[in-house]
Amino acid sequence: MSELYYGVAYYDEYMPEDRLEKDIEMMLAAGINVVRIAESTWSTLEPQEGEYNFYHVDRVLDAMHRAGIAVIVGTPTYAIPSWLARKHPEVMVTTPLRQEKYGRRQIMDIVSPVFRRYAEKIIRTLLAHVCQHPAIIGYQVDNETKHYDNVGGEMQQRFITHLQQRYPDINQFNADFGLDYWSNRVDNWDDFPPVESTINASLGCAFARFQRQMVTEYLSWQVDVVKEYATPQQFITHNFDFEWRGYSYGVQPRVDHFAAAKALTVAGVDIYHPSQAQLTGREIGFGGDVARNLKSGNNYLVLETEAQGFAQWTPFPGQLRLQAFSHLAQGAKMVSYWHWHSIHNAFETYWKGLLSHDFSPNPTYREAQTIGADFARIASEVAGLRINNDVAILINNEAMDALNWFKPGEAQTNVYNDIVRRFYDALYDHNIAVDIINDIDDSSKKYQLIIVPALYAADDALLKRINRYVEQGGRALISFKSGFSDENVKVRHTAQPGRLSKCCGVSYSQFVLPDAVTVRATAAGLNHGEAQPVELWMELLTPTRPATREVARYQHPFWGDYAAVTEADYGHGRAMYLGFLPTKAFISQLVDHLCRDITLASRTTDEHFPLIVRQGRNREGQQLRFIFNYSASPHNHTLSDDARCLLSGEQLNAAQQITLAPWGLRLLLS
Amino acid sequence: MSELYYGVAYYDEYMPEDRLEKDIEMMLAAGINVVRIAESTWSTLEPQEGEYNFYHVDRVLDAMHRAGIAVIVGTPTYAIPSWLARKHPEVMVTTPLRQEKYGRRQIMDIVSPVFRRYAEKIIRTLLAHVCQHPAIIGYQVDNETKHYDNVGGEMQQRFITHLQQRYPDINQFNADFGLDYWSNRVDNWDDFPPVESTINASLGCAFARFQRQMVTEYLSWQVDVVKEYATPQQFITHNFDFEWRGYSYGVQPRVDHFAAAKALTVAGVDIYHPSQAQLTGREIGFGGDVARNLKSGNNYLVLETEAQGFAQWTPFPGQLRLQAFSHLAQGAKMVSYWHWHSIHNAFETYWKGLLSHDFSPNPTYREAQTIGADFARIASEVAGLRINNDVAILINNEAMDALNWFKPGEAQTNVYNDIVRRFYDALYDHNIAVDIINDIDDSSKKYQLIIVPALYAADDALLKRINRYVEQGGRALISFKSGFSDENVKVRHTAQPGRLSKCCGVSYSQFVLPDAVTVRATAAGLNHGEAQPVELWMELLTPTRPATREVARYQHPFWGDYAAVTEADYGHGRAMYLGFLPTKAFISQLVDHLCRDITLASRTTDEHFPLIVRQGRNREGQQLRFIFNYSASPHNHTLSDDARCLLSGEQLNAAQQITLAPWGLRLLLS
Amino acid sequence: MSELYYGVAYYDEYMPEDRLEKDIEMMLAAGINVVRIAESTWSTLEPQEGEYNFYHVDRVLDAMHRAGIAVIVGTPTYAIPSWLARKHPEVMVTTPLRQEKYGRRQIMDIVSPVFRRYAEKIIRTLLAHVCQHPAIIGYQVDNETKHYDNVGGEMQQRFITHLQQRYPDINQFNADFGLDYWSNRVDNWDDFPPVESTINASLGCAFARFQRQMVTEYLSWQVDVVKEYATPQQFITHNFDFEWRGYSYGVQPRVDHFAAAKALTVAGVDIYHPSQAQLTGREIGFGGDVARNLKSGNNYLVLETEAQGFAQWTPFPGQLRLQAFSHLAQGAKMVSYWHWHSIHNAFETYWKGLLSHDFSPNPTYREAQTIGADFARIASEVAGLRINNDVAILINNEAMDALNWFKPGEAQTNVYNDIVRRFYDALYDHNIAVDIINDIDDSSKKYQLIIVPALYAADDALLKRINRYVEQGGRALISFKSGFSDENVKVRHTAQPGRLSKCCGVSYSQFVLPDAVTVRATAAGLNHGEAQPVELWMELLTPTRPATREVARYQHPFWGDYAAVTEADYGHGRAMYLGFLPTKAFISQLVDHLCRDITLASRTTDEHFPLIVRQGRNREGQQLRFIFNYSASPHNHTLSDDARCLLSGEQLNAAQQITLAPWGLRLLLS
Repeated sequence: MSELYYGVAYYDEYMPEDRLEKDIEMMLAAGINVVRIAESTWSTLEPQEGEYNFYHVDRVLDAMHRAGIAVIVGTPTYAIPSWLARKHPEVMVTTPLRQEKYGRRQIMDIVSPVFRRYAEKIIRTLLAHVCQHPAIIGYQVDNETKHYDNVGGEMQQRFITHLQQRYPDINQFNADFGLDYWSNRVDNWDDFPPVESTINASLGCAFARFQRQMVTEYLSWQVDVVKEYATPQQFITHNFDFEWRGYSYGVQPRVDHFAAAKALTVAGVDIYHPSQAQLTGREIGFGGDVARNLKSGNNYLVLETEAQGFAQWTPFPGQLRLQAFSHLAQGAKMVSYWHWHSIHNAFETYWKGLLSHDFSPNPTYREAQTIGADFARIASEVAGLRINNDVAILINNEAMDALNWFKPGEAQTNVYNDIVRRFYDALYDHNIAVDIINDIDDSSKKYQLIIVPALYAADDALLKRINRYVEQGGRALISFKSGFSDENVKVRHTAQPGRLSKCCGVSYSQFVLPDAVTVRATAAGLNHGEAQPVELWMELLTPTRPATREVARYQHPFWGDYAAVTEADYGHGRAMYLGFLPTKAFISQLVDHLCRDITLASRTTDEHFPLIVRQGRNREGQQLRFIFNYSASPHNHTLSDDARCLLSGEQLNAAQQITLAPWGLRLLLS
Repeated sequence: MSELYYGVAYYDEYMPEDRLEKDIEMMLAAGINVVRIAESTWSTLEPQEGEYNFYHVDRVLDAMHRAGIAVIVGTPTYAIPSWLARKHPEVMVTTPLRQEKYGRRQIMDIVSPVFRRYAEKIIRTLLAHVCQHPAIIGYQVDNETKHYDNVGGEMQQRFITHLQQRYPDINQFNADFGLDYWSNRVDNWDDFPPVESTINASLGCAFARFQRQMVTEYLSWQVDVVKEYATPQQFITHNFDFEWRGYSYGVQPRVDHFAAAKALTVAGVDIYHPSQAQLTGREIGFGGDVARNLKSGNNYLVLETEAQGFAQWTPFPGQLRLQAFSHLAQGAKMVSYWHWHSIHNAFETYWKGLLSHDFSPNPTYREAQTIGADFARIASEVAGLRINNDVAILINNEAMDALNWFKPGEAQTNVYNDIVRRFYDALYDHNIAVDIINDIDDSSKKYQLIIVPALYAADDALLKRINRYVEQGGRALISFKSGFSDENVKVRHTAQPGRLSKCCGVSYSQFVLPDAVTVRATAAGLNHGEAQPVELWMELLTPTRPATREVARYQHPFWGDYAAVTEADYGHGRAMYLGFLPTKAFISQLVDHLCRDITLASRTTDEHFPLIVRQGRNREGQQLRFIFNYSASPHNHTLSDDARCLLSGEQLNAAQQITLAPWGLRLLLS
Repeated sequence: MSELYYGVAYYDEYMPEDRLEKDIEMMLAAGINVVRIAESTWSTLEPQEGEYNFYHVDRVLDAMHRAGIAVIVGTPTYAIPSWLARKHPEVMVTTPLRQEKYGRRQIMDIVSPVFRRYAEKIIRTLLAHVCQHPAIIGYQVDNETKHYDNVGGEMQQRFITHLQQRYPDINQFNADFGLDYWSNRVDNWDDFPPVESTINASLGCAFARFQRQMVTEYLSWQVDVVKEYATPQQFITHNFDFEWRGYSYGVQPRVDHFAAAKALTVAGVDIYHPSQAQLTGREIGFGGDVARNLKSGNNYLVLETEAQGFAQWTPFPGQLRLQAFSHLAQGAKMVSYWHWHSIHNAFETYWKGLLSHDFSPNPTYREAQTIGADFARIASEVAGLRINNDVAILINNEAMDALNWFKPGEAQTNVYNDIVRRFYDALYDHNIAVDIINDIDDSSKKYQLIIVPALYAADDALLKRINRYVEQGGRALISFKSGFSDENVKVRHTAQPGRLSKCCGVSYSQFVLPDAVTVRATAAGLNHGEAQPVELWMELLTPTRPATREVARYQHPFWGDYAAVTEADYGHGRAMYLGFLPTKAFISQLVDHLCRDITLASRTTDEHFPLIVRQGRNREGQQLRFIFNYSASPHNHTLSDDARCLLSGEQLNAAQQITLAPWGLRLLLS
């Protein structure tokens, strides 16, 4: 079996009976070596309660095995059959808006004991039936699981019990959550009001965190069931998704990826991204940088990504290849399309697969054939790619929840992810590769630079760990809003940014919304001429130590005495604090300024987007460099080292100039 | 009695007691010869269950008869009395949002047996009371009936029964509707889930069609009741309306006009349209072209149109006349205003009638006086006007439903009607008069050209009939999205546009959204210089036959090899296929190109909007030409034939230049 | 005790235990001499039913008293405890959308007998406990009370009873409300349909008025309870708020301020307004002009206004002072911030108080220190300020309701308040000070000019009183839409503007929406050159008397013969009628024109915004002039009289030029 997987999701259930053999023939022609099956097919597997039908699963497993194509079997639980909804309406999730009616997928109550009973039965019956099959290389539990905004009775009762256990003294609960406000005290747990209508962010965020814990618990429960059937060689994964913004980007608000991934043996994600003129690689980058870090930097599975996708995504010639290798460059060991064919009925008719509805070869499929062939040829040299970054971005679900309760100004979107994206994209465009992490601890010493965007809610311990990271020699770029409230979303009683004042050497007690305000750099070594726009938020900063250096200052008739960016040495390290949201270009200037005396391994090239370079080391320790041209024009690039072009076999020399075609790429081994 | 009706809706119920005689006096002064009464007055007719009060109906019938004004009596069922809603809450319709509460009209469950029982009783009691009255020339059943988004228990149960009868084998149902997808199978009819929450377009569209069938059934049931009382001389009509876009335009999504009209003896419609600077005649044209074709080209009734209407519609001087004659030019035999006076309370206070709230003559009323006088004078020469078009547009409720489930790109409106309108308006502005038809069959041979916009869902038989129409010598202009899915909204498994490839000689399997894309004409005889914008959708077309002619090609760095418009000969005919939505101007160029070697009778003049010409033949076979100036400036026009001006009596000569006043018109007999 | 109150709302309940003494120390340093406590703390006062805890109230009363700071005690009823909602879900208000769930404040059913029973108990228990305390200077009943869109069973039943009492003859009710329309008759009170779904504006507006009456009744009931405990020296007030548009401005749709204020001994309001570059004083002006007139021109309490407020409101240096003195200039005798500290949890975390979350002095607090010191120093010279305006604006809740049922054109906002604001702001910017009144009677003779904006619904008696006011010598500026419908929102059967034609000498029966239309002044003495835009609405006016003078005419190809503004003498007075909504600048020109031969005492200066002058007389009859610079630039102003600058002590001379700093002010005594 190849060590690089090139795959598709396959639904024999939706297809004409006679397609299977023809499909496998076309798959083999395209180098497809893995298919994912069975997720979302509960009603086919169990058309009536207790009546099972494994016809499709059996024939696909057998046919794939004959063809040498591996199979990932998904548990089918993320879409329930109509008979279950009819018999047990209580399995439908209740959201703040309503109890859902049957129709869509992902509308069940994942903490419902009834749902769990039926889910367990279909999982066990399916796995008992297939688990001996040699085609199976792994299992996926459920799919894109979330809590579905569950505010049902079971969820709320579990939450109250959780609070009761956490707070033997109900007065402490009222104090920590500030429930005296607007007469919201709860002096008897039996009086606990419905959480969906609370106006208390502390309560709302605690509940959101608890909902995520229930996702973790649910996936862990499925993994435990599956483990009873899986062999040690078979992996168990889950298909995590990201915030959906019409495409995949940003921290997933309804799942704690890091916590939920613990139960899995390998991380899996789906990444759907804009394409055509909007193809940038940023979404592939972000998703991959999360996925790789869910399991200690190990290679991960891209269980779903688009082939043709939406009409606005049908790739230009060359883009499907660019995308596939971009996933590899992030550390993926599988690139799998959702899905093989295009769907002929229902919701995702226009979410097209590798084949169009006519099942015939098309330009996208023909491009896939070249990818499959390349993957097979280079698999052994790419397998086990390790990426060693010395820059990281700290993300945090709790900070997101809290900030989104208190969105600055007129923001309507998930503003936390907007901010994270601003920093991520600035570094991506600047060719600084990053890890995305959700905590700072002793192992964080490997990073020379950590970016801390909008860490709005954090307990004292985390702030202390940030201070210590800096004290021990790290650099930190810390943005506005960080440190503002504690883990219960209670605003700190101290000057802001709370304990982070220590490493940053700055504080403020007033903040405003920017109204056509700019800043100018004041530090040596930065461009002082150009006014930089101030977006979103504006903290009126004052140094707390004489040694704190002002880096930029607001240009404003009344706030012009306040600093906008400061830098301070602390222990062996250095922290830069930003009082506002800068442009991408200014962020990259500030990063360069903060790191002006050190060399970042994560900085792969001096060039900028649309030329993107990523690198890592393969199992033999050889360096692999991926060079991508994310533009519709040819792009020249001068090599830094002698290298062999893995795809063409050419030998290239340092200082040699190569030309990348529009949406073109090179993969170099040196 | 005149053969042209000039009318108003009249509500004695809303008026001061002493107005009736004064109103009739003013009506006579304006040439009003028909009033429509009684619809929407159930609570006045039956103020409490079983207590009837015909005071207003009786006195209006008597007074009108004395004045020589005819009366149309409407059944009062489209607005129920409060006591019925209180006693039988189950008569209120349940929509996907809620069960409606009493207040608005048109919120009853038209399939409720209880509603039917009460409705039948008031209809029978009213008709038994009035049916001998000599003033009555006809009846209107209900008013602007729709299904009101009815998803109530009775409606759903009837739908399930309908499916069961259609599908003795439930597996075939699952296959045709693609219900394996997302575990939506129904393996037992008792498990049928609520249809309002389905994500399956096949199911959703089948239900929408069924809801329309219930409208047809309901109106047919009312007609049957009314027939028991009506004399053969009395017509039975209904007031159909169109899609409401702030005004009337487009196919009505909630009624199948063609099916529902079968039970009627004459077609009736209401048409409310923008006025003042936005008055174009397009809405009058579209509504009339539908209405005329509901009953085989016969003259129809404009049961409602605006007099003053909304504040933004109060006509400029001359516009009320222009509107009235525009209706006649389409084949209307009645122009009736909603309504006589303006309403003093409630919802439609600002939907003003011919009189303002003060009941006094006003400029609009005074203009109506000239219309009434003209109608009376010309009635015998206009009556029985027949319009013989050789161009038609094919519309289809099922294609609309399906396309609206899968709206291209960011479209939010009823995009099917947007597309239909684009083609209709292009032809209207180009002075090509059309029939609007909802099927193609042997009788379609009379058309030299049929436009097929976005026929997204269609069974094989209809596609074959289109092919045969072309094969037998017809020309067809077929747009993107046509032929894509079958009658169950299952996407065809073949290359697109399905069976239409046969007549069009083109196919595609990929499509994208246009992003600032243009096309250029490539065929001889078209203007090659000007880039034409590509809107909404973009199919990547490839000819399937060598003889297929490319007419236009996309201008795009990556899609530039694909055709955008093609033309192919097929049998004795010719089909042009459009892969995208063109501008109105380009559509008219393409139509001219497609018909470059034939003469269209529907083409009334070489001039363009705002000069609009319509023509037909009166009962004696004389040609009537209506010449309209839809603009605020005077407009010159050169006559094509000798003619007599019906309104002025002038004799005009061919080649003579006439000047139309702003919003002016001529009516010529030759 | 000072006669000027400078205060804060104080919530010991939300604070760390050790803050009280430190807070009082900082309050004293800032000149704070009054605090408001206890509103919104029911759950702290009565944590479980019948268990009371007065710890915070007692310690604050004692500590404040020791410090010489007065206390206002609020009844805590506007936010109910969770145990009450749990035990009696029926106390939660039912709105047209839903029955509210526990969480927010202000979601109770104020007519629920159960709510009243519990509310009375906590009020009586609290007051019995505190009423002897010497620190208390007055009580506030409830807070920002409204009807909360209450459509619950009790509210609707009371409304039906109210209608039954008003209408012994149900037919008269049907006739007055026009319920024949759309079959909406109610022939038996038992059939009364739900009022929230009515489409009848007459019914909807009658209900809205009734809901406001229930607010009046509820506040009056609370006042009666409080009176049993209060001493004669203690005032009883309520904190009225205005329409919330992201800030306070406009007539409050859910309260009849004038009616509800009758039960109080002193008027109180909250005014939150834009700040920073958007600080204009207009909102302070409007709110104050209402508040002062609620109790016959007496000084009123600003119970809440912003200190730092939202991030976009944090005042520029000088603005907090400008705001405080602007309140005084309107007649306020208290300026009290909501709130002292900033809240650390829940909904209003970013509605910052005088202190930031860190409790430390900040620039805003330090500016407050100067205000407190000034207030103390000038109190005796400012106390009892009387403002004697001879210009008034007539506002009316019922006209608002009715107009908002029938919004012109595309208006989405509360268009009545938009119109009122246009007139108010025009006068404000023009330095014409006004009273805001809600009726015209014999006492209105003191006004030389009354503005009547959009008095859409009014009974004949009010229209007669307006005519009589003019007849007796008053001037009236009456806008479009006035007089259109009667008190039941039935459009008058006469020509428009109904009885107002009498004083205005003009009428119309048609109106349109302006579509890029302008007017030009035609009267002598107005600038004829400049075309003025026509906004919102456009009545086609025709003089009814030869002596009526056209002031402006529409510029339009078809409506150009109609007048846009007219002026007529009537009796000893004169009325100007506006057929459309003019710009602020044109309104001020028209006002000057209408008053061209008289001198308005309300006109404080010939200068315009941003220089604003307000004046009044103190208890000794001395004239106080407040001169405000509402701009970010220095502003020069030439004095009209000799005066002493109260704040600096300087003696200034007439004709002397003074310079106001950005956001600066002077307070002159002469």
